[in-house]
Amino acid sequence: MATFTCQSVALLGLGLISGSLARALKASHWKGELIGWGPREPSLALGLELGVIDRYSLDLDEVLSTADMVVVGAPPKATGNLLADVVTRCARLERSPVVTDMASIKGFVIDGPQKDYDRFVPAHPIAGSEHSGVQSSDASLFSGREVILTPLATTDTDAIEQVEAMWQLTGAYLRLMEVEQHDAVLASSSHMPHMVAYALTAALAEDAAQPTIHGGGALRDMTRIAGSDPTMWADIAETNRSALLTSINQFSAQMAKLRDLIEARDDEALKAYFLTCREHRRAHDDILNPVKVDGVDTD
Amino acid sequence: MATFTCQSVALLGLGLISGSLARALKASHWKGELIGWGPREPSLALGLELGVIDRYSLDLDEVLSTADMVVVGAPPKATGNLLADVVTRCARLERSPVVTDMASIKGFVIDGPQKDYDRFVPAHPIAGSEHSGVQSSDASLFSGREVILTPLATTDTDAIEQVEAMWQLTGAYLRLMEVEQHDAVLASSSHMPHMVAYALTAALAEDAAQPTIHGGGALRDMTRIAGSDPTMWADIAETNRSALLTSINQFSAQMAKLRDLIEARDDEALKAYFLTCREHRRAHDDILNPVKVDGVDTD
Repeated sequence: MATFTCQSVALLGLGLISGSLARALKASHWKGELIGWGPREPSLALGLELGVIDRYSLDLDEVLSTADMVVVGAPPKATGNLLADVVTRCARLERSPVVTDMASIKGFVIDGPQKDYDRFVPAHPIAGSEHSGVQSSDASLFSGREVILTPLATTDTDAIEQVEAMWQLTGAYLRLMEVEQHDAVLASSSHMPHMVAYALTAALAEDAAQPTIHGGGALRDMTRIAGSDPTMWADIAETNRSALLTSINQFSAQMAKLRDLIEARDDEALKAYFLTCREHRRAHDDILNPVKVDGVDTD
Repeated sequence: MATFTCQSVALLGLGLISGSLARALKASHWKGELIGWGPREPSLALGLELGVIDRYSLDLDEVLSTADMVVVGAPPKATGNLLADVVTRCARLERSPVVTDMASIKGFVIDGPQKDYDRFVPAHPIAGSEHSGVQSSDASLFSGREVILTPLATTDTDAIEQVEAMWQLTGAYLRLMEVEQHDAVLASSSHMPHMVAYALTAALAEDAAQPTIHGGGALRDMTRIAGSDPTMWADIAETNRSALLTSINQFSAQMAKLRDLIEARDDEALKAYFLTCREHRRAHDDILNPVKVDGVDTD
């Protein structure tokens, strides 16, 4: 396993995910510098005040000329634009920092000059929260969670190893995937479930009987992610549109099938349907409910 | 507020919910006797061993002749059958214990001779878990949660007050509703969301790309209740069929609407849709995430 040798990590955009990465790196044995850059100074100042970053700058070229690792943390569209800008600026430098991102869609965000920058490693940590902002960041967010890398055939091996080594410090585990495979799988494992939560919440909101005021733990869980950032999710819905529509269609077919079983009063088929679901959920319980380790350092 | 004056509470069927009620009563200042009865002696013996109940009996008439409060804890169909049996047996006694239940459907379970027993108080605590059995019971399960009572016009006021007083000892709060209103609201607030979780889990289980192994917190929450008891939920789907189908149709209409917005790339409409959902979720956060109090005793 490679050692994380980068001495400075720049976080472009400081929010929940990048703030959590910064906190996790600070909680590890790594002793490098964390530099914040972003379009909104208040977030950066708050990050500095909270001790999430060591310093911040509003000058992107200055940041790129000092950082060994550049991590873009933004919604998919902004990530794509920023990556294109970053690698264009890096081409003018004598040095070539590693550049990576954390967007939950990979096909859209690699489509640009970043494709030709061989030290760009597309990445996606499978962790998040319905909360937003650096003030909600959490050092244990990635503990026991998966980080998917989708390097291209031309990506520099050393750059891949450095991104892997950085994420290992957070307690996450790594997996390599093809770009298209990533986007199709994530449409089903994350993007479609978010759309289901939104549709469910919208149905409840429009119900004159106000069912939400009688909600228990089931409704708590089934609507939690409907509190997620609207701009981020409109972005995801647009940039992973095709795979998402396929996944929504698969879900809707299951919903129609289950509805038919209920309408037909097919008690035995219903029990079998529910049992299959319970078995599938239980078989994946270790992945979905990972044991969290505080102050994790797995290096 | 009435005081809980019953000296003995009989739990007919000892599982997660009735076990949690027993634990909550033991954690309160109430010092009466908890008696278990049920078709499966091992559950009762386990409940005794765990200190959830004080004693158990396999003789229903003996239990009914000593208990002041009889609580039926079973899936809807079994609850309906058991209530009919219990009130028939009670009619032969000189005393008239209060009889109540905890089923999540009220129209179905009150339909029988129990309708004419004026000390029968239909009740439904809005709390549960994807786990089953007395070994999973939890004294704080009802803390901050709602308990809905649906008494009939003929129900004895003292019986209603005793059921209210019992639930207040668990940290729950009470609400009265009409039977039909309860069943329609619960179809939307609980039963339909469970069907959505099942359909979502079935779609994931049938996906050859195995999306569940890449699941994070979103999938953890959206599939948790698909681990619920299959027999219980087949029962609920059948006994609240009409209201449930209405609620599923409302959800599916929203899912189709959201799908259309994604297909049409209507970014502004998507953001507005997601924002409305976030506002609805946040406006109900106090209800969906109540603050739990350990060893609660609100009397």
